[in-house]
Amino acid sequence: MDKFESCVDVLIVGAGPAGLTMATCLAKYGIEARIVDKRGTKIFNGQADGLQCRTLEIFDSLGFGHRAWRESNHMLEICLWNPDDEGVIRRSDRIPDTIPGISRFQQVVLHQGRIERFFLDTIAESGGHAVERGVLPFELSIDENLVDEQDAYPIKVKLRHLSEEEATPQQSATSANGAAIQDGLFRSNMSADDTQEVLEASKLDAKANREELVKAKYMLGADGAHSWVRNQLGFKLEGDSTDYIWGVLDIVPITDFPDIRMRCAIHSAKSGSVMIIPRENKLVRLYIQLTVTEKVGEGGAKADRSKINPDVILQSAQRIMAPYQITYRKLDWWTAYQIGQRVGTNFSAHERVFLAGDAVHTHSPKAGQGMNVSMQDAYNLAWKMASVVKGHSDRSILKTYQSERRKIANDLIEFDAKFSRLFSGRPAKDVMDAEGISMAEFKEAFEKGNMFASGIAVDYGASTIVAKDGSTKEQGDGTDVSVSTRFRVVSDQKLAPGIPVGKRMNSLKVLNQSDARPWHFQELLPSNGRWRLVVFTGDITQPAQRAKLESIGKLLADSSSFLQRFTPPESRHDAVFEVLAVHRSPRAALEIFDFPEVFRAFDEVDGWDYSKIYADDVSYHEGFGDIYGSFDISPEGCAVIIRPDQYVSYVGPMEDVDTLNKFFSGFMVPKGMSDRALDGDSQMRNVGKGPGSDGVVTADPSVAQASTDGLPM
Amino acid sequence: MDKFESCVDVLIVGAGPAGLTMATCLAKYGIEARIVDKRGTKIFNGQADGLQCRTLEIFDSLGFGHRAWRESNHMLEICLWNPDDEGVIRRSDRIPDTIPGISRFQQVVLHQGRIERFFLDTIAESGGHAVERGVLPFELSIDENLVDEQDAYPIKVKLRHLSEEEATPQQSATSANGAAIQDGLFRSNMSADDTQEVLEASKLDAKANREELVKAKYMLGADGAHSWVRNQLGFKLEGDSTDYIWGVLDIVPITDFPDIRMRCAIHSAKSGSVMIIPRENKLVRLYIQLTVTEKVGEGGAKADRSKINPDVILQSAQRIMAPYQITYRKLDWWTAYQIGQRVGTNFSAHERVFLAGDAVHTHSPKAGQGMNVSMQDAYNLAWKMASVVKGHSDRSILKTYQSERRKIANDLIEFDAKFSRLFSGRPAKDVMDAEGISMAEFKEAFEKGNMFASGIAVDYGASTIVAKDGSTKEQGDGTDVSVSTRFRVVSDQKLAPGIPVGKRMNSLKVLNQSDARPWHFQELLPSNGRWRLVVFTGDITQPAQRAKLESIGKLLADSSSFLQRFTPPESRHDAVFEVLAVHRSPRAALEIFDFPEVFRAFDEVDGWDYSKIYADDVSYHEGFGDIYGSFDISPEGCAVIIRPDQYVSYVGPMEDVDTLNKFFSGFMVPKGMSDRALDGDSQMRNVGKGPGSDGVVTADPSVAQASTDGLPM
Repeated sequence: MDKFESCVDVLIVGAGPAGLTMATCLAKYGIEARIVDKRGTKIFNGQADGLQCRTLEIFDSLGFGHRAWRESNHMLEICLWNPDDEGVIRRSDRIPDTIPGISRFQQVVLHQGRIERFFLDTIAESGGHAVERGVLPFELSIDENLVDEQDAYPIKVKLRHLSEEEATPQQSATSANGAAIQDGLFRSNMSADDTQEVLEASKLDAKANREELVKAKYMLGADGAHSWVRNQLGFKLEGDSTDYIWGVLDIVPITDFPDIRMRCAIHSAKSGSVMIIPRENKLVRLYIQLTVTEKVGEGGAKADRSKINPDVILQSAQRIMAPYQITYRKLDWWTAYQIGQRVGTNFSAHERVFLAGDAVHTHSPKAGQGMNVSMQDAYNLAWKMASVVKGHSDRSILKTYQSERRKIANDLIEFDAKFSRLFSGRPAKDVMDAEGISMAEFKEAFEKGNMFASGIAVDYGASTIVAKDGSTKEQGDGTDVSVSTRFRVVSDQKLAPGIPVGKRMNSLKVLNQSDARPWHFQELLPSNGRWRLVVFTGDITQPAQRAKLESIGKLLADSSSFLQRFTPPESRHDAVFEVLAVHRSPRAALEIFDFPEVFRAFDEVDGWDYSKIYADDVSYHEGFGDIYGSFDISPEGCAVIIRPDQYVSYVGPMEDVDTLNKFFSGFMVPKGMSDRALDGDSQMRNVGKGPGSDGVVTADPSVAQASTDGLPM
Repeated sequence: MDKFESCVDVLIVGAGPAGLTMATCLAKYGIEARIVDKRGTKIFNGQADGLQCRTLEIFDSLGFGHRAWRESNHMLEICLWNPDDEGVIRRSDRIPDTIPGISRFQQVVLHQGRIERFFLDTIAESGGHAVERGVLPFELSIDENLVDEQDAYPIKVKLRHLSEEEATPQQSATSANGAAIQDGLFRSNMSADDTQEVLEASKLDAKANREELVKAKYMLGADGAHSWVRNQLGFKLEGDSTDYIWGVLDIVPITDFPDIRMRCAIHSAKSGSVMIIPRENKLVRLYIQLTVTEKVGEGGAKADRSKINPDVILQSAQRIMAPYQITYRKLDWWTAYQIGQRVGTNFSAHERVFLAGDAVHTHSPKAGQGMNVSMQDAYNLAWKMASVVKGHSDRSILKTYQSERRKIANDLIEFDAKFSRLFSGRPAKDVMDAEGISMAEFKEAFEKGNMFASGIAVDYGASTIVAKDGSTKEQGDGTDVSVSTRFRVVSDQKLAPGIPVGKRMNSLKVLNQSDARPWHFQELLPSNGRWRLVVFTGDITQPAQRAKLESIGKLLADSSSFLQRFTPPESRHDAVFEVLAVHRSPRAALEIFDFPEVFRAFDEVDGWDYSKIYADDVSYHEGFGDIYGSFDISPEGCAVIIRPDQYVSYVGPMEDVDTLNKFFSGFMVPKGMSDRALDGDSQMRNVGKGPGSDGVVTADPSVAQASTDGLPM
């Protein structure tokens, strides 16, 4: 058996949506990462499929939003069907599937196999390493003495390369109309984990195997609900299963049900519920409550898997949807699952090994949340990890991953528990029927749930990287992610109430000053790992605003500014921060030369930069974004700091560069610091910072910077 | 030397934009075609670059509009710069580059190499044959006895396969900043044709050569301004050259000129003119009037090519744009050309061999028309040729190609001559300066030219396939394309004044009845070779409209309808015609089951068809298309026939299926006709139809149909 040894910045275990998001982001940010998966192939059908509007925004920022938007089925309307007085199902309500106005995208459906394809293509285009399939980790250790050292490789993982046969999951051999159908039971929570089994088997097969030792700076366990990484770390999922068993069929339906191409929630009087999710390529997914399975085992908690097959599931659907007829000739995929909600106790070990996706939160699939929240976990973590690996940021920002995302996971299971209960319950016959579910309550929950389900409601709490008032512990999952008072900054939200700190910034159209082209503001914020300072300058034909603009231009160009201090020498002017201006003057009244050079940097080959200055003005063909009016931005202007993941860190006075400097000094590492100086700085920042301490930063990095010998500032 | 012989439905000579459009369309329509080009590689930079909004609509109908839209530079505004009283250039006007509201796209710029890539990808995805490069035709004959026989191969072409060296054009070895730069002089009209030279050379090189004989049913010569095919047919380009010499530079500019990212027309007082076309990837194209070249030759008509190089061209630009500075470090491509306008005398020989693109119209490149009009030539011809090859249509429709497109070519050179004169002239000093060009007149021409330049103004005249009043000769290029009075149909335009017969139908959003999704109406008209009948039903909650809807449903389902008669047996219900409904009732008031089955055909595997019924109603997220209001569609409804290329053939009363039957009977071939019967039918239709005759159709195809023995009708 061959043995190999190598080093890598980041090792990702699991090539599902969370792992692929991580790999894609890191490839885009220029961080070397390897991604391994025990399965031999990507999946081709079935699995998760709903994409929130926030997820489409993220896809767009990664460069493939348009592919998902084009190929997916768009869901516009939810129809609620309930029993009438005779117990016959009737359409009782129509509500928009995505709340109008919250995003430039709406919820769509596309199967996971295509989504994984977009990630794989983007990794390749960005120069990242391809997914290594049929590769299984089997030993993990972390050297705790090294975890605080900037450039150490404290993680050791042993990998085993599997034969093709070992890497192929065992699937039930279902057949429909003579064709073998793939099912998803092997990934369902009704199946036991097969990792150990695969490992045991592989030991016996000497043909294809080789073992490898990988040393990594950072690691992500995105290896699903049965996460091997989580188990190695000794972390648990906490929560409960319920008795509700649901089946899932992906079919091309033959039916006289009139809303089969709408998203529908159908509550029958006595036979259970169906959710309809219309999909791409004429497919429709049915989530069907099963009432005929027998319970087995001691606690009665697990259903008898052998009794569940597509015919049984279809018959349930037919009972629920009667008097309408439904059948099919084409079955694409099917599975079954038992509803439960569980969340991981910890999302990270030493801020070196992290967990994301199903490894730290599992719940029912019907709300279309799982894949979205999983990808957003990795999207939250990737830029932080990249920034630390590159030496731009202090390791302290990595704590915000658990603080921000474990909070979301808790919100998610709370939402899912409520939603599942309402969905699985029998409709109340009347107001006196206390055991039944009120259909009015269901509709209300559905409408409220829509904001949560969109992904737009995410509101990160105060931390090193979110300049909000209040307790970081209370606003997150309890983790302390506060910055020392010396660097503590609080936003002045009233300067732009429509740009809420902690949330992602919504998008409206603005016009490029140089060519009058309308862009969605979010299109100006691609995921490239960079921070943005957006200066809303107001109307700079007004002398007061022009004076402030000139002042900010000077201050940002000064060597004491965060822009100059934290951009490494020899890198492009916008390698770490992009400085954008959005003005409220008539576009035709200005030229880019009316703006300080920091907004239009000169390059001796490319000339002036024409991509940083925008006007909030009427376009010729795409209306008027009115970003000042819509976000209620003060005529005094304001400065907005936007994180690399598009969440707003700070809103404050336009001219107050001191506060911007203070904010970034709280976690960024001055440029030109040698490795030694970096470590020193990092140590100084961590003085007094033990486990569970307040994370007080006691050293000023500008002092540390002054101790380096004559490097260009 | 090896010799081969083969047959193909269509042979395309030339793999530029016109040839590739033809190959792409035919691949999509399922017609076997070969496409050959004498050059060894596709082009990678330079060349034509402007894409009209109509061209983007066509690209979208071919499935790659989004790729062009994403990658291109969008041009929003035209800035006019003219000398002020002191003779210094000043911005005198701003006008929108594309007239607002005429299309859902606006004019963009993307280099020809990328556009060819989109075509090549689409040909491959559609299962078409790849371009055969380094292949040159050298002998052409047409058997005139066979040209009227439906399934004959009257065309014989001998091809020679070249070695790589022979297929590589000779380019000037320009160098800029140490790097060799490709120029476009070899395709410029200032260079002689090199076809003969390549052929001669190839005869001497026995290594790579082989000869091949290809027999074809149809052929397209899309082989450029020096067209070998045109020369073989003995057809001429007629028109003149001028003395105006222009240079072209594709550079990344370094300049203080404030409108360098706008499309600009700059007239200097004495140094000539510059047109600025901002492009993708920071490039800018400058069209620069050259005043320093010396004339040579007898008529003084050809400039001395050896005196033209990038430095000379840049110096001209610097004189014209003074006092602004302009220079560059990156030169991507350059060329020079002499302005002239010429149109082909004939666009087809026997409706078997056709010419398209530069082979039949050449003019100056500045208006961004050439590539667009060339592609639109092929787009016009492709569906007609496919329909005839498949036996769906009579050969008579092929005459409309010359009638429609030669008319456009004449309009184009008239436009270009005027535009070039205004552009190349010296600005008038004042109203008394009769030799100078009035800048007011220039602006007016620019604004008017914008409608022409958009491609939207195209208005095809009356013919077999356009049901308009008036003379087909006067409305086209003089070719007689009239239908016999027996089948003559004239539209009732007042039922929908906003859907003008002969023009492409503009696009507004409508909602799919089944899932409430908004679609641009044009997205419902992809280029798949099918005709569309769009029934605007009005409000079918009104009994009168519902009665008409039910009537049309019955009439279309009847075996006497065009739909049943001209759709071949065994093919899909919508293989030749797609029947769409757009209603004006509230969407939520209806279900698809309120419509006759012809609008929602049942398939035993796929169930009901959910893609044919649309509502003109308010969407949740994308506003209200108001297609009835915008196009002034009568509350009585109307029936609209749309050609496979999206041009409107007919507008008439909703319930008048007889007229629809009559229209299609004028040129379509009843289903189930044997080859023999087809030929007979074709001959009957052509009775009395010699060259220059009135093209009277004397036989009713329904009679011919009755003579076939018992095939299903």
